[in-house]
Amino acid sequence: MPAVLFRTDNDNPDQWREALAKRIPDLDFRVWPDVGNKEDIEFALVWKVPAGAYDGMTNLKAICSLGQGVDHIFAEPNLPEGAQILRIVDPWMAQAMAEWVLLQVLRFHRQGMEYEQFQREGRWVKLPAPETATKRVGILGMGALGAQAATTIAALGFDVAGWSRTRKEIAGVTSFAGEAEFDAFLARTDILCCLLPLTPETTDIIDAETLAKLPKGAFVVNSGRGAQLVEEDLLAALDSGHIAGASLDVFRTEPLPEGHPFWTHPKVQVWPHVSAQTNAESGADQVAENIRRIFAGETPNNVVSRERKY
Amino acid sequence: MPAVLFRTDNDNPDQWREALAKRIPDLDFRVWPDVGNKEDIEFALVWKVPAGAYDGMTNLKAICSLGQGVDHIFAEPNLPEGAQILRIVDPWMAQAMAEWVLLQVLRFHRQGMEYEQFQREGRWVKLPAPETATKRVGILGMGALGAQAATTIAALGFDVAGWSRTRKEIAGVTSFAGEAEFDAFLARTDILCCLLPLTPETTDIIDAETLAKLPKGAFVVNSGRGAQLVEEDLLAALDSGHIAGASLDVFRTEPLPEGHPFWTHPKVQVWPHVSAQTNAESGADQVAENIRRIFAGETPNNVVSRERKY
Repeated sequence: MPAVLFRTDNDNPDQWREALAKRIPDLDFRVWPDVGNKEDIEFALVWKVPAGAYDGMTNLKAICSLGQGVDHIFAEPNLPEGAQILRIVDPWMAQAMAEWVLLQVLRFHRQGMEYEQFQREGRWVKLPAPETATKRVGILGMGALGAQAATTIAALGFDVAGWSRTRKEIAGVTSFAGEAEFDAFLARTDILCCLLPLTPETTDIIDAETLAKLPKGAFVVNSGRGAQLVEEDLLAALDSGHIAGASLDVFRTEPLPEGHPFWTHPKVQVWPHVSAQTNAESGADQVAENIRRIFAGETPNNVVSRERKY
Repeated sequence: MPAVLFRTDNDNPDQWREALAKRIPDLDFRVWPDVGNKEDIEFALVWKVPAGAYDGMTNLKAICSLGQGVDHIFAEPNLPEGAQILRIVDPWMAQAMAEWVLLQVLRFHRQGMEYEQFQREGRWVKLPAPETATKRVGILGMGALGAQAATTIAALGFDVAGWSRTRKEIAGVTSFAGEAEFDAFLARTDILCCLLPLTPETTDIIDAETLAKLPKGAFVVNSGRGAQLVEEDLLAALDSGHIAGASLDVFRTEPLPEGHPFWTHPKVQVWPHVSAQTNAESGADQVAENIRRIFAGETPNNVVSRERKY
């Protein structure tokens, strides 16, 4: 049987080895850097590989991301031409992401930042009760993750819109599409949640210009990719008071470097890229099925377009 | 026309005057302490009145709480015998309460306490991803507020149970009833949320014994009434490590006194009784209807049992 290469800096190889062995008992599962004979590798299951990692893997047929995002795969300049790019599309991750985004939305909506500050000051202060029906949440990116976050938040009574490349029909969620409708989407958004895939088009999408088009007092949530947010522009908008606060799970450099102003900024919550961690047990079914298909020469599921890069 | 007495230490008299005047244009609305001729008062709309406030109001037919709770009304030793006790049952408040409880549940579930601490320490640490389906939320009190909180939280995939005096049939929520099932309810509860009305039976219900019956590492949310929680018992359980943390919106003394250990306790979030603030605009319809009925000698809505006290 051909071999599977496993390489990540996030996930536990033993959990994946065990979860896949339950489904493919005699699987030849090789954990980087113990690759063995490189020509045996037909399937790579990875999260961020060192440059040149695939050199010599002449039989590599598929590279599968250990998460929903595949930008880390396309970052490899010598990506083998013949390999299909796959990803995990995991309902468990979509739920985890929707939960995390909802937590950030509720915390801002219910004035958690203010009440946490009042507690630190030992002050008993009641603010006017917030109105859910008029609080406008805007989701950037309406793929599997964005759509589930949008419907989850809309179910609680918020006024939810989504922005995506193409128009989406999702009950209870207003759809804005394409560059032409980006400004209108921003103008009606009190809480901006980024769940976009990272592509050349979405890099730096949340910059000074974008932030300026949000209403004064808006809140920014990023659980897309760090490179989508121009961090110094967010800091300037926070300090000017135009943006009220931010909850960030992803950063341009991860781990977030020591001394970065986000660590101590009173209006920023820092999360260490945990909004939707890949779960071996829930993801193993589809990965095992794709390994089986690739080894058998069949068409795999969840193939990523090399052109669109997501 | 008879007169309405308005007395509160929380709500804005002008908002209520305006909201009711839209519905009953010639309403004689008197704000405490400017009561005028006490015999004119047939309807009192109140939140916590001073002792003896109703003395001389010989024509008082109804006392309506400005919130869902009526314990503050029964605290008056000279409560006029002939007056019916009413309350506001407001879908807007039930939604606000469900939202607030959900925020506390999600913050604990998604390890917000830990990640906030890691941020203060400038540490990038990933904890194992939490499992929603096995996280057991327990709602104490399954009235209008408790039931909506339970279904809202269950809809996100949590394992939700409710405890109440009598058994309730609510889809997706396990029902525990009465004293006989209290211990079993506690034993299966990772996040305990109290939304009980305050009665002699529920006073001090969350004490050392109750807390000890929760699993180690449980979290406590109280948005019922302060007198339901024995505060020193919670502090002891937090300090022993048996209880992981608490989010509290109500306290034995409100405002929470200066120097109270909750203010600075690292595992306690203090909220100033804002989980479900009464909203004049959304509550005015039913209050106006009850004023009309009382003045016309008809049977009012949302009558509270003097015997059960809720």
